[in-house]
Amino acid sequence: MKQKYQAQIYVTLRPSVLDPAGTAVQSGLAHMGYTDVESVRIGKYIEVSLSATDEAEAHKQLDIMCDQLFANPVIENYRIELVDSE
Amino acid sequence: MKQKYQAQIYVTLRPSVLDPAGTAVQSGLAHMGYTDVESVRIGKYIEVSLSATDEAEAHKQLDIMCDQLFANPVIENYRIELVDSE
Repeated sequence: MKQKYQAQIYVTLRPSVLDPAGTAVQSGLAHMGYTDVESVRIGKYIEVSLSATDEAEAHKQLDIMCDQLFANPVIENYRIELVDSE
Repeated sequence: MKQKYQAQIYVTLRPSVLDPAGTAVQSGLAHMGYTDVESVRIGKYIEVSLSATDEAEAHKQLDIMCDQLFANPVIENYRIELVDSE
């Protein structure tokens, strides 16, 4: 019997990698008058609903999905939060 | 004296709004063999470092930034988490 899980995945650029989009947003904010903003970094937030036999299995599948599809492991980190949704 | 704050902003599509990109990712995952994935929804995750006089002021500024720049309030929700980074 498979359980349903809800996963929240956060994909962020590694700290050593430049974020041109974030820098553009920061300079846009500065032009709008928000000069107290020191840095902006933009990542992805992905919500996945899936079914799996147990939490370890769900986590394992999500790890592979992140490595293969959601994140570029060369330049990005990811973090998975898993919630049992049943 | 201004304090430094670190904000994490999550921007998600409202539940009633279709997410074609998420649907495409879900069908991509199905083709890769992950047929247990029921839904994928893609949002944005934004990290902002800013300085403000206090937490309420920081929150107020971030709210305006979200409404004006980060999120489209017609189709997106946002959530702000604020951490005192000093």
